[in-house]
Amino acid sequence: MKSYRKELWVVVPEMQGVKDLTDEIRECVEASGVKEGLCLVNVMNVPSSIFINRDDWDIHKEFFMWLEEIAPHDPNKKAETKDVEEHFADVHFKRTVLGRDVTIAITKGELDLGTWEQILYFEFDGKRRKHVLVKIIGE
Amino acid sequence: MKSYRKELWVVVPEMQGVKDLTDEIRECVEASGVKEGLCLVNVMNVPSSIFINRDDWDIHKEFFMWLEEIAPHDPNKKAETKDVEEHFADVHFKRTVLGRDVTIAITKGELDLGTWEQILYFEFDGKRRKHVLVKIIGE
Amino acid sequence: MKSYRKELWVVVPEMQGVKDLTDEIRECVEASGVKEGLCLVNVMNVPSSIFINRDDWDIHKEFFMWLEEIAPHDPNKKAETKDVEEHFADVHFKRTVLGRDVTIAITKGELDLGTWEQILYFEFDGKRRKHVLVKIIGE
Repeated sequence: MKSYRKELWVVVPEMQGVKDLTDEIRECVEASGVKEGLCLVNVMNVPSSIFINRDDWDIHKEFFMWLEEIAPHDPNKKAETKDVEEHFADVHFKRTVLGRDVTIAITKGELDLGTWEQILYFEFDGKRRKHVLVKIIGE
Repeated sequence: MKSYRKELWVVVPEMQGVKDLTDEIRECVEASGVKEGLCLVNVMNVPSSIFINRDDWDIHKEFFMWLEEIAPHDPNKKAETKDVEEHFADVHFKRTVLGRDVTIAITKGELDLGTWEQILYFEFDGKRRKHVLVKIIGE
Repeated sequence: MKSYRKELWVVVPEMQGVKDLTDEIRECVEASGVKEGLCLVNVMNVPSSIFINRDDWDIHKEFFMWLEEIAPHDPNKKAETKDVEEHFADVHFKRTVLGRDVTIAITKGELDLGTWEQILYFEFDGKRRKHVLVKIIGE
């Protein structure tokens, strides 16, 4: 069995934003030499998501608007005020709806995604460097 | 290490509906010959979900009603109007709450599910053929 | 390839509560002997979640309050009234938002988590013994 690990670094210049990581993860799959296996992609920082969808700003904007409706920003609700950097509670809720990680099949050495599927990083507390873990196992 | 891949085809005759895929996925596990491993099941089309729950129409109906409350259909919000078939934004939100994929353990050659757990396909934009990926790795 | 399976038993004395399972899962990883691989953790009972976040009661409380807002308890909505123990529909919705399972990388024999990430069990229908599956594969 082969295994491969890489941390990707992501900076989103605004507080909220999206970055398509599909090409970088394809490079990881190629570097891993794995032909058949599984690829786990997860954020390592709490206030962001890994999420599979079409990479289209029209739909990304709709997502941010909808998340604001179901988990509105409330400046009085700080989720953490002690030994970590402050995040507001709504940031936790928003990232939870989209999710922390995705698992993708690797088939014949390639990411086995649907035609319109892209691996997206969604940021809810940007302007800082974040990291994303790519872990691949297989043969 | 063994690996196995199959695409299941699903047609839900209404716009919204549920199909229990557990038996088909059990057949994949058997065909794979894998005794100990992991089974990834994911939709390959955006407007649907793979979701583990009890297969009971009373609760499915409650889910569709609740999803309509938190992500109501708005005919003015088309998420994609360009080179892909049109989906309304609410379809994206609904499928995101339930999720795109599940990973299930395989133990002694069988899906390692809880007593009431079934692997369900939830459709939010039906009447068309969709595909679901089953990927198994293990030994 | 090595594989390892363990069921953890959890009792939350209140109807809603959180238990940090990170240490117990670390012990599973050690017992498995797997140095590079994947660790799947999933609930086997419907009305609970496995969820990765900081283990902090301030944020847990915010989560329970927010989930009550988007999926309020309605004593008239029983999701199951037949051959299983009764759950109210809102319990299904709440646990769905947080999720049923997580997959975590194992690197150099350890859970490959971000600095603040803990593996949490969220209970929405407590006072009873529940079980959580830990499945590890790798080498």
